Amino acid sequence: MPTFKMTVSYDGTAFHGWQVQPGRRTVQEVLETALGSIVGTPTTCIASGRTDAGVHARGQVVSFRCDTLLTPQTIHRATNARLPFDVAVVSCESAADDFHANRDAIRKMYRYIILDGVRCPFSRLYALRSAYKLDEKAMAEAATSLLGTHDFHSFETNWPNRATSVRTITDVAVSREGDYIRIDIEADGFLYNMVRTIAGTLMNIGRGFWETDRMRTIIEAEDRTQAGPTAGAEGLYLMRVTYPDGM
Amino acid sequence: MPTFKMTVSYDGTAFHGWQVQPGRRTVQEVLETALGSIVGTPTTCIASGRTDAGVHARGQVVSFRCDTLLTPQTIHRATNARLPFDVAVVSCESAADDFHANRDAIRKMYRYIILDGVRCPFSRLYALRSAYKLDEKAMAEAATSLLGTHDFHSFETNWPNRATSVRTITDVAVSREGDYIRIDIEADGFLYNMVRTIAGTLMNIGRGFWETDRMRTIIEAEDRTQAGPTAGAEGLYLMRVTYPDGM
Repeated sequence: MPTFKMTVSYDGTAFHGWQVQPGRRTVQEVLETALGSIVGTPTTCIASGRTDAGVHARGQVVSFRCDTLLTPQTIHRATNARLPFDVAVVSCESAADDFHANRDAIRKMYRYIILDGVRCPFSRLYALRSAYKLDEKAMAEAATSLLGTHDFHSFETNWPNRATSVRTITDVAVSREGDYIRIDIEADGFLYNMVRTIAGTLMNIGRGFWETDRMRTIIEAEDRTQAGPTAGAEGLYLMRVTYPDGM
Repeated sequence: MPTFKMTVSYDGTAFHGWQVQPGRRTVQEVLETALGSIVGTPTTCIASGRTDAGVHARGQVVSFRCDTLLTPQTIHRATNARLPFDVAVVSCESAADDFHANRDAIRKMYRYIILDGVRCPFSRLYALRSAYKLDEKAMAEAATSLLGTHDFHSFETNWPNRATSVRTITDVAVSREGDYIRIDIEADGFLYNMVRTIAGTLMNIGRGFWETDRMRTIIEAEDRTQAGPTAGAEGLYLMRVTYPDGM
């Protein structure tokens, strides 16, 4: 059966996250409804991973299989014509029969955006506002401690039955553009609320509440109570999902 | 009585425009409620001009008078603390006793933003989406015909009892950044829906539906039916209001 790989972008504000939940508006439900009406049969979409309520995506990857003669280009256009304005298909292509957007993902990149300047009505849903001016250099220095393979249990909201909280962060960068600070993190996988807890921890360091080397201590503690607060969903974006070459 | 000049920014999406209307959420009502609770007496705000439902502002100017010992800085901060997240005070200063934000304005600058690339969930409320790729060079060339003093009746939604539809456009520019086109227009005043009708006309030229020199013909016609459609409110921003030096 033909298998497709689709990249989608969504404004998470008005969604209760990715995954279908009875009686709630979710990205999966909206996308499956649009796809189903095009290909004529109920179609299940598998995402690279769930995103939580309010979290945005610019490069969520989805796989689905359906018996259709439609080309990926037609599915792309027809789906966009049916989707509400807060979700858009960025690309759609044919994939190998056994392609699975979740199982096959080898890396994900998230971005967290913080505004530490005056309140801006236009970014209220798209960046976390910090009441404190932040030192992005201190944040960047602290963030380097995250690189590599660690047990990130300190940055995990408890989640029953997870086998391991060891992950490998392959890239991390903190940069400023005007009053906006970006935290970019790429890893082989993320724990529940991991990026938001890292953002909350880096904010405590950026405002001078904690020293830069506190980040290392927090990682080593493997204790969630040592890290900073879980920063709000409005600042978080799933930017990119990477698959093995040719997938 | 102390008089203040305040600059405000708002996301027009959830407002029925600037002006108070019974039973509707308007910027004026929200701002007057916040201010009234700070200075302790009902306070009337005068804007440089009304903005319509859905229209945004980055630099709307407001004047108000009230018997208070609070400094402009305190009013600025206290108002921001009470305003909903889609309105923000950008600045607040003392003004001359007779300062009047509407009567004293000598120029206004509006920006219209068009997206002519793929649908973007994050700009759906902040730019008009064009289904056609637009030629911004043709639009810029056509726009030069607007410069100077003309009767702009062709770009005016009928409005009873308006004395004259002659206005002077002092500056106009069309520029592209990626898939976004900006139309910046500064004038001594604007007619009802004037910027949105100019945008709709320029879009017809940008997609090649009309020739560049059609703009001149439309201005000379002094007939609304000759111009393009009124482009959507979501693309329009009141950017700046200019007053005489020292005001």
